[in-house]
Amino acid sequence: MDAKTLKKLKHGIETIVPANGLEEKLKLAEKEKRPLIIKFGMDPTAPDLHLGHAVAFKKLRDFQEAGHEIHLLVGDFTACIGDPTGRNTTRPPLTAEEVQKNAQTYIEQMDKVIDTKKNVKILFNGAWLNKMTFADVIKLLGKATLAQMMQREDFANRFENNIPISLHELVYPMVQGYDSVAMNCDIEFGGRDQLFNCLVGKTLQEAFGQKEVGQTVISMPLLRGLDGVMKMSKSKGNYIGLTDTANDMYGKTMSIPDDLLPEWIELTTDFTPEEKANMIADYKNGTVNPMELKKKVAFDIVRQYHSEEAAQAAEAFFYQQVQQKGFDIKAFEPISLSKLSLSTQNIGLLNVVSALQPNESKSALRRLIESGAVSLNGDKITDPYFKIENLKKGIKIKIGKRHFYELID
Amino acid sequence: MDAKTLKKLKHGIETIVPANGLEEKLKLAEKEKRPLIIKFGMDPTAPDLHLGHAVAFKKLRDFQEAGHEIHLLVGDFTACIGDPTGRNTTRPPLTAEEVQKNAQTYIEQMDKVIDTKKNVKILFNGAWLNKMTFADVIKLLGKATLAQMMQREDFANRFENNIPISLHELVYPMVQGYDSVAMNCDIEFGGRDQLFNCLVGKTLQEAFGQKEVGQTVISMPLLRGLDGVMKMSKSKGNYIGLTDTANDMYGKTMSIPDDLLPEWIELTTDFTPEEKANMIADYKNGTVNPMELKKKVAFDIVRQYHSEEAAQAAEAFFYQQVQQKGFDIKAFEPISLSKLSLSTQNIGLLNVVSALQPNESKSALRRLIESGAVSLNGDKITDPYFKIENLKKGIKIKIGKRHFYELID
Repeated sequence: MDAKTLKKLKHGIETIVPANGLEEKLKLAEKEKRPLIIKFGMDPTAPDLHLGHAVAFKKLRDFQEAGHEIHLLVGDFTACIGDPTGRNTTRPPLTAEEVQKNAQTYIEQMDKVIDTKKNVKILFNGAWLNKMTFADVIKLLGKATLAQMMQREDFANRFENNIPISLHELVYPMVQGYDSVAMNCDIEFGGRDQLFNCLVGKTLQEAFGQKEVGQTVISMPLLRGLDGVMKMSKSKGNYIGLTDTANDMYGKTMSIPDDLLPEWIELTTDFTPEEKANMIADYKNGTVNPMELKKKVAFDIVRQYHSEEAAQAAEAFFYQQVQQKGFDIKAFEPISLSKLSLSTQNIGLLNVVSALQPNESKSALRRLIESGAVSLNGDKITDPYFKIENLKKGIKIKIGKRHFYELID
Repeated sequence: MDAKTLKKLKHGIETIVPANGLEEKLKLAEKEKRPLIIKFGMDPTAPDLHLGHAVAFKKLRDFQEAGHEIHLLVGDFTACIGDPTGRNTTRPPLTAEEVQKNAQTYIEQMDKVIDTKKNVKILFNGAWLNKMTFADVIKLLGKATLAQMMQREDFANRFENNIPISLHELVYPMVQGYDSVAMNCDIEFGGRDQLFNCLVGKTLQEAFGQKEVGQTVISMPLLRGLDGVMKMSKSKGNYIGLTDTANDMYGKTMSIPDDLLPEWIELTTDFTPEEKANMIADYKNGTVNPMELKKKVAFDIVRQYHSEEAAQAAEAFFYQQVQQKGFDIKAFEPISLSKLSLSTQNIGLLNVVSALQPNESKSALRRLIESGAVSLNGDKITDPYFKIENLKKGIKIKIGKRHFYELID
């Protein structure tokens, strides 16, 4: 393996366990004259992908370009079970068709970063887990102890604080770990919060005698969302979706707090490592206006997910609409009242906002209103349940920094 | 239900959970005009039964005589798995044939107490557990929490003292509990140490919506063994087997410490409750020599498992051999040296004793020697590894209080 490839592969990785695990696996692949098998679990219950997901995709792309195989794992087994306690109503069991459809949607979005036609396999863990008998499960569970599971921080915390842990939850890391055995993978990619589960996979590959040294586990840094605090996530409403419009991507990026710049430069752009380093240095030394850096990041994001031309247009739009302050009435997007199918008497603000932004969750929009980001004819309204007496043509609604609507017939 | 039957059924039971659970279930049976289903789990890995097992059998017989059904459960599912960690080498996985054979042996011995042809069904839990998929297992496990499992004392203690608990062990109470669901039983009999697992069965019957109030759990008192301290068990060597000879049963009973008398009168004899109460009062008031009470108990035990005549003969034998002290040489059982197939030069005492008593475990015999219960030509030997230089005709070996051997050609 050449040093340049190794350097590129390692660049930006947050954690590698064991520390020399990448070098070891690359040596092994060279010795056995085969590509490495990289396991990447996709969540079939959350098919809306955002820049947070893309952080890992970009690293997967590095491995793909170095000739290795990406094995995408769809966890259909647990998705089709749902929450057996019935407590978590946000995760109803999915049908096989829904999983298939979500996986398809996932791949389509992933395709914006990775060429999923090249060295990419898609596997469903139901293929092996649905075949397991109760006796097989007992034998699997015999390979780990309760104390090992309790090393997972959230289990330990919940146990200590008397927050119920259902027994099936203790089994899920073993399920995920067994997937690594079934896939015979060399490397597993996991988010920082998946590190524990991934290490169970390493342990099980060893316990089943599959590998002398089980899989290497790699995690990428988490990307904080638009709010600058929380991990980017759909439920927090602080995200840029991979299918967002060019104007949205540009505008949302321009809205991030300055101190997110180093991490966004590093994780969301496709600049070279040297270019990234220079930009980060510029930010830290205060030699460039953060706004200029943000524009470069915003431009590059739009360029990746749309095109160079789209990025130019989005930049122009942003200048026109937002940076020049004083909102141009013409910038309000005309929305046909008849198409919204809303009652027009005494309707709550949240319902109107939700009709205008159907892709956002109600809870995210509620928080948005409460944070003061929504105004009605220029008046900021912070009560999501504010009643609009007469919803009619001509009413102007501003949602966040970039959405302006004017009701028409 | 009549008060007399209820009184007889309740007599001698140590624990009923819930406290009114027996009355409730009897009322239910009366209302639904059906017999109660009594679950009793048999252990197919330990087919040598003793008076400790018979304590529960006698109570089952009371239910049987009151018209209820005994459903004997053979735990073939776990027996055929063995210990998945491979740590417990004393429990190798059994084949289906071995389980079948052990269950047969178990029933034959049980038949000495209960007429197993009458209202007795034999069920193997593999019948339903082997059909369960991994998804079924997850759903089952979703019905309990880790905190609930940790209420089992041995789990809590082991967790606290960092003694490993394999994950599959946490699942076993759920397996046993699910058996109650599959069997739709009204009452489960369990030893005191099984109480926790039985209560999981009650919880699961309720969680699966099978019964509004799940099974009632009954446990009988533990019988202490010949040593007067430990629970009677084969591995401790402190037991009277249900297939022991009449002389063995009689003699072993005569060897128990006096203070076991109340519990043995209560749990091992078939005297009426009034007779038992009188005998226990006699013992406690010191109005009867404990030796006389022991003789009555010993006689009754032999009478139950052999016959009245056998009991008389055993009593006579005991008088002749042991109670009159000064051992009669003729009482030494002649044992052909050639049949023992032992080396005759420099052989260890334990090996000789083990050849003479092939049904006892070596560890039990080792403890017996160490306790000073074995003598060679009248000399007590406490070293199990004592070398007999020349094992030859005429050597006399005494093992315990009742076994006398003289070697012949």
